[in-house]
Amino acid sequence: MSQKKVLLVDPIRSGGVVPDGIKRELLEYLDGYSTCLYCTGDLHELRKPNIKKLVESLEEFIDCDYVRLVHGAREGMFTVMFAMFKEYVLKGARAPVVVADGNAHYTSILAAERSMLDVVFTATTEHPEYCVVAEDYEKKISEVEREHGKPPLLALVTYPDGYYGNLPELKRIVDICKSHGVPVLINAAYAIGRMKFSLRDTGADFVVGSGHKSMACTGPIGVLGIVGREAEIVLRKSKFKEGKEVELLGCTVRGAPAICLLKVLPYLKKRVVKWDAKVNIARYVADRLEKELEFRLLGERPRRHDLLHFETPRLYEISVKIRDRFFLYKELKKRKIIGIKPGITKRMKISTYLLEKEDANYFVDSLVEIVERFEKYGFTNR
Amino acid sequence: MSQKKVLLVDPIRSGGVVPDGIKRELLEYLDGYSTCLYCTGDLHELRKPNIKKLVESLEEFIDCDYVRLVHGAREGMFTVMFAMFKEYVLKGARAPVVVADGNAHYTSILAAERSMLDVVFTATTEHPEYCVVAEDYEKKISEVEREHGKPPLLALVTYPDGYYGNLPELKRIVDICKSHGVPVLINAAYAIGRMKFSLRDTGADFVVGSGHKSMACTGPIGVLGIVGREAEIVLRKSKFKEGKEVELLGCTVRGAPAICLLKVLPYLKKRVVKWDAKVNIARYVADRLEKELEFRLLGERPRRHDLLHFETPRLYEISVKIRDRFFLYKELKKRKIIGIKPGITKRMKISTYLLEKEDANYFVDSLVEIVERFEKYGFTNR
Repeated sequence: MSQKKVLLVDPIRSGGVVPDGIKRELLEYLDGYSTCLYCTGDLHELRKPNIKKLVESLEEFIDCDYVRLVHGAREGMFTVMFAMFKEYVLKGARAPVVVADGNAHYTSILAAERSMLDVVFTATTEHPEYCVVAEDYEKKISEVEREHGKPPLLALVTYPDGYYGNLPELKRIVDICKSHGVPVLINAAYAIGRMKFSLRDTGADFVVGSGHKSMACTGPIGVLGIVGREAEIVLRKSKFKEGKEVELLGCTVRGAPAICLLKVLPYLKKRVVKWDAKVNIARYVADRLEKELEFRLLGERPRRHDLLHFETPRLYEISVKIRDRFFLYKELKKRKIIGIKPGITKRMKISTYLLEKEDANYFVDSLVEIVERFEKYGFTNR
Repeated sequence: MSQKKVLLVDPIRSGGVVPDGIKRELLEYLDGYSTCLYCTGDLHELRKPNIKKLVESLEEFIDCDYVRLVHGAREGMFTVMFAMFKEYVLKGARAPVVVADGNAHYTSILAAERSMLDVVFTATTEHPEYCVVAEDYEKKISEVEREHGKPPLLALVTYPDGYYGNLPELKRIVDICKSHGVPVLINAAYAIGRMKFSLRDTGADFVVGSGHKSMACTGPIGVLGIVGREAEIVLRKSKFKEGKEVELLGCTVRGAPAICLLKVLPYLKKRVVKWDAKVNIARYVADRLEKELEFRLLGERPRRHDLLHFETPRLYEISVKIRDRFFLYKELKKRKIIGIKPGITKRMKISTYLLEKEDANYFVDSLVEIVERFEKYGFTNR
């Protein structure tokens, strides 16, 4: 057991691990402005290193008209919201409101707040599934239309959300929004780079992905994908500086994260086709933890993502009994399992993304062993 | 000669070279979200890695009340301008205008354009010095006041600019702006990390610095420094998400560049005190090139920065004669000197920041040799 590799089950880090070989290649790009020696005026047009080709490959990978590198998913969402705000809200065509799914990440709310937009949330089903209710977009959009006399600026769908790993019914939601003429932005920070994703297929206008969260990339970096005519708004050129895109402030990721994404993309293309195997591991882990430790799985069933969120009453009871909220964190660390939130015992959020079947068994076996030992002996027999 | 190390004279890259030892240390932080394993909800409050200490050390280094990590100097300028726009322009207190020095970087113009602000430029002296005329801030601010009936939102000073490396009279400019109640933002992308800088001493409100440009840091990263009450505007907390700063979208540089800055700061503290020696090398190189090749130095005299910009008529004449705009780039590359813009021969922009005295001589000797040989033999004797 002591020879075991380190297992990382951290939801925000499991999809961002960079292959070792690529890390070593990055050494020569760690100086500042390492992308810019052959600058031709626009990061996305660079041929050496070939960022232009990266962008074109990403347009294919995400299946959309335009891709731009951004500093992360949140910065991508802000870029869209603020550009749209200026074009449509300030000119009176739309209400300063984003209709977002009830599971939206906090950064979407900050991106809206920074853009002077209110957020109206759609309903989700109740505990324990918390599924986004697609039809509620119809209701919420209609309410905004009634209140403001015009449609909301934008609809946002988090696919999947980071709390439960639920995958909303994209097609249905987009159809509803489009029937009201409302453009749709998908936050796919936990999708792009893990699973196949086609923006065109969804019918939505925008998508953001996260390099550091799900694209095996050193951070910070994200991608913004666009289909259709709203591209003119978000990618408008400066009136004063020829060729520079205003909303990107000219160039965005001018350094190592852009090179990393360039180098890692072939690996991403291969790994997304193995997504089903990843989901199977997640289901297997969830199943064992529910059966053997009575952990209560939150979120939709069957699982369709590696993010798992459990209520864990037995962990909580132990922590109360032994007066130590950190016991599980410490015990797992001894077993080279890292990435659960230290001090949290009522709930457990993990990602099984990096676990092979034997790792999954080691992880569950370790949890079972820890729980049973502490329940039986408390601190006394450690 | 063939054993010679590579000499980098690229103005945008010379201050961003990361010490080799630190590059190797970064290997273990190249995974995505490598700063976030012990997340406590705010990047700037993290204790492990100790970003909180980094921020405090930077507040001392830049001598200001608050420092925040941003994605670069341009993103820092946008953050200030847009936050101030919402607080002062939208509420009617100030005109939507930034009064900027005539040498301002294009990114300041994009940051203003993105923030729905106009830019009014102050005058500079004429060719060849292009010095910012401090008194012109008085004139331009008064003009805005007359036209709009209220003061401009902000004044911007580029210290130094990236075209000529001129250092404007900060104290005088700030005094003028303050006498009109206009807050001042300093773009110190080519200063912080190269030379000592105290925001408090300038009397200005904001400063931005660039990690990848002048702080020996892997990119993209920058710093935003604030003194005084405008901090409340720029660092306001979300109404919806407790503890999150809206204008930073919660957290900014969540990855390797933040770790790099943490590791490199002690080195920066040491190198800024050796600034005079750097300036002496710049003066030495400029002096020799003027005397030996009749290059015409642009910008203020005496030089007070390592950025050098020359008119180079002899290079241009050679390129016309031999019909090859790239001869100098190729010849320098053979001699392991990199960083001049390929194909540009009428002018030459370099930084001498990384050159020791013997490197400076090697660089000038190489240029002299190339020019004299091509003038004498053209292509024939290469």
